[in-house]
Amino acid sequence: MKWLTGNTSEILLELANENQLTQEDNRQVEKQVQQIIQNVIQNGDQALREFSETFDQVTLNNLFITEETIDRGYQQVEKEVIMALEVAKENIISYHQKQKQYDFMDTEKAGVLRGQLVQPLNRVGVYVPGGTAAYPSSVLMNVLPAKIAGVEEIIMVTPPSTDGIPDVILAAAKIAGVDKIFQIGGAQGIAALAYGTETVPKVDKIVGPGNIYVATAKKQVFGVVGIDMIAGPSEIGILADETANPTYVAADLLSQAEHDTLARAILVTDSVVFAEQVEKEVYRQLQTLPRKKIAEKAIKDHGRIIIVSSIAEMFTIINEIAPEHLEVQLPDPISYLHEIKNAGSIFLGEYASEPVGDYLSGTNHVLPTSGTAKFYSPLGVYDFVKYSQVTYYTKEALAQTKEAIAILARKEGLEAHARAVECRFTLEHGE
Amino acid sequence: MKWLTGNTSEILLELANENQLTQEDNRQVEKQVQQIIQNVIQNGDQALREFSETFDQVTLNNLFITEETIDRGYQQVEKEVIMALEVAKENIISYHQKQKQYDFMDTEKAGVLRGQLVQPLNRVGVYVPGGTAAYPSSVLMNVLPAKIAGVEEIIMVTPPSTDGIPDVILAAAKIAGVDKIFQIGGAQGIAALAYGTETVPKVDKIVGPGNIYVATAKKQVFGVVGIDMIAGPSEIGILADETANPTYVAADLLSQAEHDTLARAILVTDSVVFAEQVEKEVYRQLQTLPRKKIAEKAIKDHGRIIIVSSIAEMFTIINEIAPEHLEVQLPDPISYLHEIKNAGSIFLGEYASEPVGDYLSGTNHVLPTSGTAKFYSPLGVYDFVKYSQVTYYTKEALAQTKEAIAILARKEGLEAHARAVECRFTLEHGE
Repeated sequence: MKWLTGNTSEILLELANENQLTQEDNRQVEKQVQQIIQNVIQNGDQALREFSETFDQVTLNNLFITEETIDRGYQQVEKEVIMALEVAKENIISYHQKQKQYDFMDTEKAGVLRGQLVQPLNRVGVYVPGGTAAYPSSVLMNVLPAKIAGVEEIIMVTPPSTDGIPDVILAAAKIAGVDKIFQIGGAQGIAALAYGTETVPKVDKIVGPGNIYVATAKKQVFGVVGIDMIAGPSEIGILADETANPTYVAADLLSQAEHDTLARAILVTDSVVFAEQVEKEVYRQLQTLPRKKIAEKAIKDHGRIIIVSSIAEMFTIINEIAPEHLEVQLPDPISYLHEIKNAGSIFLGEYASEPVGDYLSGTNHVLPTSGTAKFYSPLGVYDFVKYSQVTYYTKEALAQTKEAIAILARKEGLEAHARAVECRFTLEHGE
Repeated sequence: MKWLTGNTSEILLELANENQLTQEDNRQVEKQVQQIIQNVIQNGDQALREFSETFDQVTLNNLFITEETIDRGYQQVEKEVIMALEVAKENIISYHQKQKQYDFMDTEKAGVLRGQLVQPLNRVGVYVPGGTAAYPSSVLMNVLPAKIAGVEEIIMVTPPSTDGIPDVILAAAKIAGVDKIFQIGGAQGIAALAYGTETVPKVDKIVGPGNIYVATAKKQVFGVVGIDMIAGPSEIGILADETANPTYVAADLLSQAEHDTLARAILVTDSVVFAEQVEKEVYRQLQTLPRKKIAEKAIKDHGRIIIVSSIAEMFTIINEIAPEHLEVQLPDPISYLHEIKNAGSIFLGEYASEPVGDYLSGTNHVLPTSGTAKFYSPLGVYDFVKYSQVTYYTKEALAQTKEAIAILARKEGLEAHARAVECRFTLEHGE
């Protein structure tokens, strides 16, 4: 792991420089994705079939996965996995239900009603990656908040494969309550959801993770439909002092590192002795991991040990990093909660190991990455609703404000705006 | 105005076809904006000065607008305008305060805490267009929700001009509580906010309307910073029957049409006689408007009269259009509120003329356009906050869920995730 030491500003500068380097140029991908999207807009299902042959080496009879196929997949999954998914579902629902928002209406001015309606999106698309990145837990995390929001129809797309869609993905879709599944991958899957084809219905918003083609396609259809955040590599930041358990801290860093070689695992501590213990533990535990190769490269390239001189400095630095996951392994961790400004999901104390949040606590595991926790939020029910404003004025209430409206409208050179209000008073009905 | 008649599906098909045509190809602009952004990243303030000379024909000594300049501008503005802006501010605050959201924490499972923190973004950038599109009301609408959210620092950028920044814009910025103003326009203004320069601080999110260069730049920096929605041409939909006043309806259609030649003004009615009266009124009122040329072209190109056979059909069609502004000029309008699924801002009854919302009701006038009300919301306090999840588990609580976590982690091939939890039980502290 790479060690960073020095004063706060030196460490922050070093971290900023590292970030600069990771901004890659993917103009080639952008161009290719543009062409894929255009092709889907023009040729619909035919384009989807052709891309399936080219990219997935699968000749598709049906894009649509039937309910029989889904049920058959569900039946194939071990009972203990189904039960664990059901427990996860229950916890996700009980947490996310608290995010529900309600209409309001205010009557504080005579003759005026002002309100806000909260309404679900009508139809949502969920992208589920294929291959080894096909995570049933992510199906639950993406779909259940939409269900709680009241979304009428949830469409899932996932890459076709010669082996078929993994059973556990079909099972998770069934458990979560997905309405329709289509086997379409990559940028073409995003294009199909954004524009619709003969068989794929156009959706209002697309969520879910994917590779660089999927992420680029989401960015390109942004505005035609809503999208969730663009996810970058996964990351964990752990704040710990000498009272923490180096075994636990090392294990949690590795749980992040095994995701992919770009995953970032960062320890911030005020104890050099503790940091050394953790580093030793990381390499010891690494030896027996099935995904050793991936985790080892992630730790080598993106593992960081940051040595600070005070607890306060820990928070200054971690707020600048704005990690996706943040563990606070300090004594009385809840006492530091108000110090945390930027983090997707915060885990307090030595037993809130980050994988608890990945699978079972019920908090969402779709989180802002790469420092975007400064302005993005975890996926939630709020991502699947939209607001409408409501205004009602009586004639008397309008009379009281018409002058101010006219003054501002004329100052902005918008005469028709002023007249729209004034004509209500100079002309009578039917004139 | 163009008349659309027929059954619901014919009308919807026609509207869909019209939308297809308006999707333009602006790859040339995209490329130019990419270069501008790169230049700002590499050359900072120097690039901003050069772009100012090239695009705005202004040689800048200072990018920063001093407080003295702002105060001088404020003093120049007519007292009645200042007072009207103050009334608008008061109403905007009283409405938007109701959007504030609060932390929650749940304790429903023994030994488990799960919560959600709501925190303001730290620093926000507001783009304010120059020239005739410089609207003081928009300054209030963009800045005040950020203030209410608790944003620490609000940075405004607006194009330089040989005449200086308009006094009324400086006054609105002062009234709204903008912290710093820089005179930088176009894509370079967005780049400066997104990446920061020697003098312009990097922000966490950028909001505010702008021309095609500004909109394209916002789309390109999306992910580096947060952005609000990409605004398209303004639009109004009015639902009215024969009991409505054609003079009011025509005036409200024109208040939209005068914005720009791409503005859409749509009347949906079940009365041909009423529609004819409105059309006649539109052309009569048009004659004396200062912005006649603009409004006339908008009405001619994008004015629509849609004839339906029932009130129910009005709502089917308007929900598909998903207008930015929707007026319901029907008897007992509030009784139809639950029929409205997609609209940015809804105005009920004959005295809730749309310009009331532009200036004074206090609801926001930054709204989803071009049908994006299906998935976007008005600008609000929620755009300037972000959530963080919080999780705490005791050892006993973790013991109860560790098996389910391990089952799911192993099913996903993520052994290190399973071990991170299990090591808390197989190893003791300090081992």
